Amino acid sequence: MSKKVAVIMGSDSDLPVVKGALDELDKFGIPYEVHVMSAHRTPALAAEFAGNAKKNGFGVILSAAGKAAHLGGVLAAHTTLPVIGIPVKSSTLDGLDALLATVQMPKGIPVATVAIDGAANAAILAAQMLALSDPEIDAKLEQMKADMEQGVKAKDAKISAEYSNC
Amino acid sequence: MSKKVAVIMGSDSDLPVVKGALDELDKFGIPYEVHVMSAHRTPALAAEFAGNAKKNGFGVILSAAGKAAHLGGVLAAHTTLPVIGIPVKSSTLDGLDALLATVQMPKGIPVATVAIDGAANAAILAAQMLALSDPEIDAKLEQMKADMEQGVKAKDAKISAEYSNC
Amino acid sequence: MSKKVAVIMGSDSDLPVVKGALDELDKFGIPYEVHVMSAHRTPALAAEFAGNAKKNGFGVILSAAGKAAHLGGVLAAHTTLPVIGIPVKSSTLDGLDALLATVQMPKGIPVATVAIDGAANAAILAAQMLALSDPEIDAKLEQMKADMEQGVKAKDAKISAEYSNC
Amino acid sequence: MSKKVAVIMGSDSDLPVVKGALDELDKFGIPYEVHVMSAHRTPALAAEFAGNAKKNGFGVILSAAGKAAHLGGVLAAHTTLPVIGIPVKSSTLDGLDALLATVQMPKGIPVATVAIDGAANAAILAAQMLALSDPEIDAKLEQMKADMEQGVKAKDAKISAEYSNC
Amino acid sequence: MSKKVAVIMGSDSDLPVVKGALDELDKFGIPYEVHVMSAHRTPALAAEFAGNAKKNGFGVILSAAGKAAHLGGVLAAHTTLPVIGIPVKSSTLDGLDALLATVQMPKGIPVATVAIDGAANAAILAAQMLALSDPEIDAKLEQMKADMEQGVKAKDAKISAEYSNC
Amino acid sequence: MSKKVAVIMGSDSDLPVVKGALDELDKFGIPYEVHVMSAHRTPALAAEFAGNAKKNGFGVILSAAGKAAHLGGVLAAHTTLPVIGIPVKSSTLDGLDALLATVQMPKGIPVATVAIDGAANAAILAAQMLALSDPEIDAKLEQMKADMEQGVKAKDAKISAEYSNC
Amino acid sequence: MSKKVAVIMGSDSDLPVVKGALDELDKFGIPYEVHVMSAHRTPALAAEFAGNAKKNGFGVILSAAGKAAHLGGVLAAHTTLPVIGIPVKSSTLDGLDALLATVQMPKGIPVATVAIDGAANAAILAAQMLALSDPEIDAKLEQMKADMEQGVKAKDAKISAEYSNC
Amino acid sequence: MSKKVAVIMGSDSDLPVVKGALDELDKFGIPYEVHVMSAHRTPALAAEFAGNAKKNGFGVILSAAGKAAHLGGVLAAHTTLPVIGIPVKSSTLDGLDALLATVQMPKGIPVATVAIDGAANAAILAAQMLALSDPEIDAKLEQMKADMEQGVKAKDAKISAEYSNC
Repeated sequence: MSKKVAVIMGSDSDLPVVKGALDELDKFGIPYEVHVMSAHRTPALAAEFAGNAKKNGFGVILSAAGKAAHLGGVLAAHTTLPVIGIPVKSSTLDGLDALLATVQMPKGIPVATVAIDGAANAAILAAQMLALSDPEIDAKLEQMKADMEQGVKAKDAKISAEYSNC
Repeated sequence: MSKKVAVIMGSDSDLPVVKGALDELDKFGIPYEVHVMSAHRTPALAAEFAGNAKKNGFGVILSAAGKAAHLGGVLAAHTTLPVIGIPVKSSTLDGLDALLATVQMPKGIPVATVAIDGAANAAILAAQMLALSDPEIDAKLEQMKADMEQGVKAKDAKISAEYSNC
Repeated sequence: MSKKVAVIMGSDSDLPVVKGALDELDKFGIPYEVHVMSAHRTPALAAEFAGNAKKNGFGVILSAAGKAAHLGGVLAAHTTLPVIGIPVKSSTLDGLDALLATVQMPKGIPVATVAIDGAANAAILAAQMLALSDPEIDAKLEQMKADMEQGVKAKDAKISAEYSNC
Repeated sequence: MSKKVAVIMGSDSDLPVVKGALDELDKFGIPYEVHVMSAHRTPALAAEFAGNAKKNGFGVILSAAGKAAHLGGVLAAHTTLPVIGIPVKSSTLDGLDALLATVQMPKGIPVATVAIDGAANAAILAAQMLALSDPEIDAKLEQMKADMEQGVKAKDAKISAEYSNC
Repeated sequence: MSKKVAVIMGSDSDLPVVKGALDELDKFGIPYEVHVMSAHRTPALAAEFAGNAKKNGFGVILSAAGKAAHLGGVLAAHTTLPVIGIPVKSSTLDGLDALLATVQMPKGIPVATVAIDGAANAAILAAQMLALSDPEIDAKLEQMKADMEQGVKAKDAKISAEYSNC
Repeated sequence: MSKKVAVIMGSDSDLPVVKGALDELDKFGIPYEVHVMSAHRTPALAAEFAGNAKKNGFGVILSAAGKAAHLGGVLAAHTTLPVIGIPVKSSTLDGLDALLATVQMPKGIPVATVAIDGAANAAILAAQMLALSDPEIDAKLEQMKADMEQGVKAKDAKISAEYSNC
Repeated sequence: MSKKVAVIMGSDSDLPVVKGALDELDKFGIPYEVHVMSAHRTPALAAEFAGNAKKNGFGVILSAAGKAAHLGGVLAAHTTLPVIGIPVKSSTLDGLDALLATVQMPKGIPVATVAIDGAANAAILAAQMLALSDPEIDAKLEQMKADMEQGVKAKDAKISAEYSNC
Repeated sequence: MSKKVAVIMGSDSDLPVVKGALDELDKFGIPYEVHVMSAHRTPALAAEFAGNAKKNGFGVILSAAGKAAHLGGVLAAHTTLPVIGIPVKSSTLDGLDALLATVQMPKGIPVATVAIDGAANAAILAAQMLALSDPEIDAKLEQMKADMEQGVKAKDAKISAEYSNC
């Protein structure tokens, strides 16, 4: 079985977004732990979790947070595991604050950032990382890519037939 | 003597901006310690410093950082002292990233944010906080305000005389 | 009893946001006065209020305003008390106008700015300032911080148990 | 002679931009007073000046300020004369802060805003206002418009001849 | 009776915003004509209207438009009357496109810009311009300012009594 | 009959926007094929389609996509036919991401970009291109322009009569 | 010989940007006229030019303008020829104002917008339009595409050889 | 020896930024190939390279591009290897266009995005991915983290000693 993925959200209000990642991880059969940890309200817990993640069997950390989204950076500060940041859209500024606070990390401490509310892609990116040493996940990624292609082609056939006019 | 102010910068490259705060603190005769601490490179140090700041005689913490400026939030996570955040302009995005990453803090952990590169105002704001229980600093603030007013009036007199045309 | 906090809003339409600050001040047992004053419609009143705030027993001023949010700056122009600015989101531009108009103050006149619609944090920041000379508020802040940590941990336990899959 | 124009800048550092307005006012022969007044450093002076401007023979007020540009709004709060706001670009955010802080005025207190650093246009707009009751300025405006047209046509002739290729 | 105000909207979909201006003009007793004219769909009409506005008894032109809001600039190109631009928020970009397209006019052709959807202020600004030579409108402006002040004070009394806690 | 127009959308969720283009193409009697093709999910299909479009009788390609909208650029990379890009507003950032990802193309590979969600204009622009060698479409464009003008004039007559007050 | 291209700039200060288009048109052997015409300073000239462009042998109009860039829209209002808009970066806002003022056109009057300062691409886009009925230009476009590919491959060979390390 | 890293830039003008990644890869002893490939000028080459990258021994792909930065997405479309996107700042918009065009990827095709011009972090992120199955790189990452911490502490000691005043 592959290394585990840690899925950390800064607030339980991020859960609806985060579920998009859990669905994908389930498809890949990747084991994961889900946690609510705050860079600001439980900083010691977040530091301890990230600091021990590698020896506790985690391979990748997903971090979802909104507004001044420090969670990804704080987790990355305590581990050399890859940390994937999911900027979450909140009630103002349309997610731009979370995007910039997640992606603009200083030299030495990267956070691999995906699109605003892009939790599914964060999970797929984690799978891509784990697949580097896990042929089973790699095969599932190839299959997912093929399925996506077929899905688009099916939609194309339907819409092209219905709407083309020539 | 008043409580000390901690002046923390995320990188020594922030020093030219930070000096603007030191100059003001000197004018008020407020004692201060200056440190380079990174939310991401020395997170344990930053956490420890903030966690002990109150008992070590600090009253206010100034935090200057650029890009995904997490430093203010990380310090505020470990203390109930007021933390003043100075967003520092870096090579891209004109400081907007640092501003949003500093000011958009979640409920429970405020960072008192001043203008981009506004280090002098951060020091004055610290003085205003300390003046709540320090009449000497309060008197200096009143004097500074009066001096500013006179300074503007002197400039007005000069420019009005030179440029008015009526 | 601690110094009072003045809670000023630029328009009665800001009241729903402002209530978030009143709730927090009540928790800390900090006395406060609430006012509607406009930098533009009642400038003399705002100037007079701020000019007399210190001698009238106020320690901190909270200012909530939207759009071209001048209220914080106008109040700060007339006092050396710390002024905390709450940028309020209005019908256009998602609060960015109020944020920039509040935070980008010129040298000499800081406004301690919190997140867009961040009224609760403005109250907590005021409590942090008053706690510098009020051990009772300081103790409540420490308690609040501990409670927040426990609150997040409780949510973590619940969500981790329900959603982890490993 | 027409009513006077008041040209107010928030800081003497705005003078290079403001000169663009003075040049235009000179062309129209409109008398003007130039002042440095700050919404934040000399608020009483600004309030008094604006409050008395109408009876002191002013017809229009020009206000140039950068960053959290409150000056136009503060002047407009104390007079019913038209106030023209010139947002000045400062060292960060490319003038966007000054633009939003100047133009996004609440209902009841308009500030007629021109382009960032658009001092010349502020003066021309003032001339347009005064021309409503001053045929001499009106004639100069018509002449200026005709001259601009000729100026563009001359440039067109030169550039068209030099660069066209057909 | 004062000169007329022309109220031009770029599309009939702007009417709900524009009505905010008509209400104010009614209060001032200022006569006005309302038109739908498009900088792009009826450019000749717009040019002709603006070109003849002065001799047809208009004193000020209000222009409301959204998206790439060229209407104010196009009208200003054909007259030396003051043109007031109202940027209208449309379905994308929250009005920022209309604001920039209205306010960032080149030298020589100002458009006096008010807040996004700020039609009421556009009308008040027009009244301020006409009041320069119309004591009756001037008196109404002074009265409106006094009424606004009383309105805010009444709200302050009510809210202060209900919400203060000290 | 004119060359065909290819209408490509990156996802079937773009269909409601895209229909605005189909309606216009129908009015012009321009034949078109509609397809769902993704720059990322079916890149080979998109490349092949664009690479063969010219010899398959297409004259213009319309491309509608949201978020990191690469579709227009990817199609343009494989053909010298003009490609018109329609940035589609998605759930965050109000379409700004799609606009910049569509319009900011590097030298050598233009994408003719229209407004966010501006599908109707994309179709009209395609008609303008085809009209360069198709007098029938050219005549319809002239008629459409005349009709638009009449439409605005009719609205003007109605609204001017109902709302003017002078 | 193909139809002519009109290259219109709003100000002679746009010439350095515009030259990037002239260079490309020369490569394609497309005849062009260059003009300085302003939507605001010479509106009648711009209207007349665009209105007569089709019968005067023009096939495409290029329009380069900065700030509140109305020129493209104003030209498009008077013709059904395709108009290509080049937003020009000016001293503030980094070209965002010109981009939005050019691209966000209302329904019925498209402006085909290229990147900020993207004059070369505007010319190539014009060539693509003319190539729809001009095999010679079409061949040159195909050749240019092939040359670009070879150019990149040559750079790749050089840089790959110099910098790869494996 | 670990899997290779592919470092792809969209233009040779991105080389100065990209070198920041090469330096880091050298420190980790990770083999890499450097290429110039354009999503738009050499799309077939980019597709082929990415499609074969996995079987050619690559583990991670770094992609640096500016403006409408499609390169990362185009490469990711042809492989399930993790693709790391480096948005490159160009002459306008301060890198915001490249950031949004890189990070806002649709579901299914993630691009792991780092800060604007953040090439060093892209390399470190690649090392973190490879370290999941390479203890040697993992050890170097841990060492780098320790070294960074010591580096900051050394700067802190120096600056604290020189600038503190208490």
